[in-house]
Amino acid sequence: MEAHTLSIGNELVTGQQLDTNARWLSEALSDLGVRVLEHTTVGDDGRRIASTISRAHESAELVVLTGGLGPTPDDLTRQAMAMALDAPLESNEEALAEIRAFFERLGNTLTPSNETQAMIPRGCRPISNLHGTAPGIQHEGSSGAIFALPGVPREMEEMFATSVEPWVSARTAGATTQKALIRTFGISEARIGDLLRDLMGHDRTPLVGTTADRGVIGIRVIAYGPSEAEARSLIQADEQEIRRRLGDAVFGEGEATLESVVGSLLRKQGMTVATAESCTGGLLAKRLTDVPGSSAWFQCGYVTYSNEAKIELLGVPSDLIRSDGAVSEAVARAMASGCGTRSGCDFSISITGIAGPAGGSAPTKPVGLVFIGLADSRGIEVRKALLGDRLDRKEVRDRSCSIALNMLRLRLLGDGGM
Amino acid sequence: MEAHTLSIGNELVTGQQLDTNARWLSEALSDLGVRVLEHTTVGDDGRRIASTISRAHESAELVVLTGGLGPTPDDLTRQAMAMALDAPLESNEEALAEIRAFFERLGNTLTPSNETQAMIPRGCRPISNLHGTAPGIQHEGSSGAIFALPGVPREMEEMFATSVEPWVSARTAGATTQKALIRTFGISEARIGDLLRDLMGHDRTPLVGTTADRGVIGIRVIAYGPSEAEARSLIQADEQEIRRRLGDAVFGEGEATLESVVGSLLRKQGMTVATAESCTGGLLAKRLTDVPGSSAWFQCGYVTYSNEAKIELLGVPSDLIRSDGAVSEAVARAMASGCGTRSGCDFSISITGIAGPAGGSAPTKPVGLVFIGLADSRGIEVRKALLGDRLDRKEVRDRSCSIALNMLRLRLLGDGGM
Repeated sequence: MEAHTLSIGNELVTGQQLDTNARWLSEALSDLGVRVLEHTTVGDDGRRIASTISRAHESAELVVLTGGLGPTPDDLTRQAMAMALDAPLESNEEALAEIRAFFERLGNTLTPSNETQAMIPRGCRPISNLHGTAPGIQHEGSSGAIFALPGVPREMEEMFATSVEPWVSARTAGATTQKALIRTFGISEARIGDLLRDLMGHDRTPLVGTTADRGVIGIRVIAYGPSEAEARSLIQADEQEIRRRLGDAVFGEGEATLESVVGSLLRKQGMTVATAESCTGGLLAKRLTDVPGSSAWFQCGYVTYSNEAKIELLGVPSDLIRSDGAVSEAVARAMASGCGTRSGCDFSISITGIAGPAGGSAPTKPVGLVFIGLADSRGIEVRKALLGDRLDRKEVRDRSCSIALNMLRLRLLGDGGM
Repeated sequence: MEAHTLSIGNELVTGQQLDTNARWLSEALSDLGVRVLEHTTVGDDGRRIASTISRAHESAELVVLTGGLGPTPDDLTRQAMAMALDAPLESNEEALAEIRAFFERLGNTLTPSNETQAMIPRGCRPISNLHGTAPGIQHEGSSGAIFALPGVPREMEEMFATSVEPWVSARTAGATTQKALIRTFGISEARIGDLLRDLMGHDRTPLVGTTADRGVIGIRVIAYGPSEAEARSLIQADEQEIRRRLGDAVFGEGEATLESVVGSLLRKQGMTVATAESCTGGLLAKRLTDVPGSSAWFQCGYVTYSNEAKIELLGVPSDLIRSDGAVSEAVARAMASGCGTRSGCDFSISITGIAGPAGGSAPTKPVGLVFIGLADSRGIEVRKALLGDRLDRKEVRDRSCSIALNMLRLRLLGDGGM
């Protein structure tokens, strides 16, 4: 089954409000095995709403629209639906009784504006609203159905469950969509595209695609199938193949983050980590402690932003800072070493770099130059990264932490080498 | 001028990712005086993208689309645009040179996938991408223009500023929207609504409205006017009145953050700050060092997540932790005091609390209980906050840091009291 969704409201087309309904509906419909062909957002313009409803109804079996059912003059969904269906608006007894009952429960009196909310196009049915005044509207024709739901997320979601969901289920018995999201780090999107080219055709099932977010490349795998078991097995076959091709660049699935994966590995191995940060200024510790339960494997972090702090808190030799500079391999090494000795933790991570925008003394020490140290009982590994070319201060800091977390992840997996 | 915006990607129509570009574009276009007639989202389906581009181009002078310019086979915007314009795809010299230069700077080699990113429809122009590999595409015809921008928000926003904005400005000379955003902390949105009720009518000019973001309530003031001077003077009158009514709850304007304002005050007064964090795990230090140039007033931070770390790094008496618990006023006081002594900074901030989801030993120590200490040469002030009622772990951590920053801000303004 294919669907077209439609969001209505001036607050959306002017950008005053973020449209979260569109995403919610896309996800809910996908989960029911319905493929969303298109989503459209239009303002409070009756003619445009009507023409969009007509166009959607012609191309998709299911049309779900949200918003514009309120009591104020800029709520035009009722009129637009009547226009699109070429049917007059009539007051609906059932809807009116529900609106009356709602107001009585609240101890309020009905206004004429609220009475207009009981108007629906002839031939349509009202949908009960358990959480607000505006009833929804359902139309069923030979080519498919149109559901008009309120814009308030909670009312919309509740009404979706009582109207759209049973309607779809009755027509697609069993059919379903299964999804997986495989997360990678340390490999470029283009490289992934080259490695997975044959899997990424847009006519293929499952659908395989990539998304990039702060250095993490996610690989989406989506399968529509006649049954859950069938869709799931399609997904699993692809997942295995993708994991095989991408190797340890894959760090997790779904909602996994580098820090949550590192946390799980530390917990399983009964190990602890401490941090010594300069340019990232606490971000690495913050990301580690974003993980609930991190107190099991994270004890302390040193934010040594100044040279004095590096010397006093971590025991970095002042001579070393003078000779090599605070942003150097030697200082990253000394920071990781001092952090390990002083914290007594199994792993220590150090980060020192130039996050920018100022502070770069090109060409040997440009903005974005970062050294990341990882120490354990076997020794210290230091990695140099040049991140300033296209990343700003915030991104340099974030990417430095991701690289550090990934180094620790690989070390915990036993293939980090030295 | 009227516009149609278009977002492209299977991750959007399946609901795997929230489309934030649509809103950003709506807002940016509105600011330029452009009215967005419709926004459409479609999946990675070349034909559907092409037909939507054609339909949009016919109805609106300006079409802005985002997404589908990446290097992978599911990126079909180039092909779709060629189809819609009935023009062949050609490799563009200028675009190819830029992509090559990007890879050379990174020291990577170009893959065939990246080379396809230089393909654009004949008659179109590439738009430089300062932050990624995918160039944008600009088409200008007799009925208007089409801009294809990348889906990555930062690349999209940057490219919008260098391509769409000048194109629109050249065509809408004079008319302008002026905006101000006044930022407050420590006052509720409802209270602001009461204090500013007479300014917030929706028929009034300027339009005054509020937005809440993680405890910071922003007050938007927007004036449309025939000239910049006229719009700006309307804004200024409102701004003065709002500042008068809200007093020192106003911490800044526009892009100001609590941390940037605290940083400016510290710099002006030649003072320094150090941090001692438990439940916020480095977030406070991270937020302070988000501010460029923070090394002038931030030297070090202690992330003391475990009791041992509080004892060893800050000198908190172990007896005190035993008697009062790590989350207590007394420990917050000892942390701030130890941080001040050991760092030698003018101000020390400590945070200890229960961020959740686990760890609450109700009823005396529920999730969301946080103690925040602020020490300077005059003494130590500790504030207790109960944040668990409506906030999750992430929000409790963030709000705790905002309260801490606001305490320091008020102290620096001289009315923090003791």
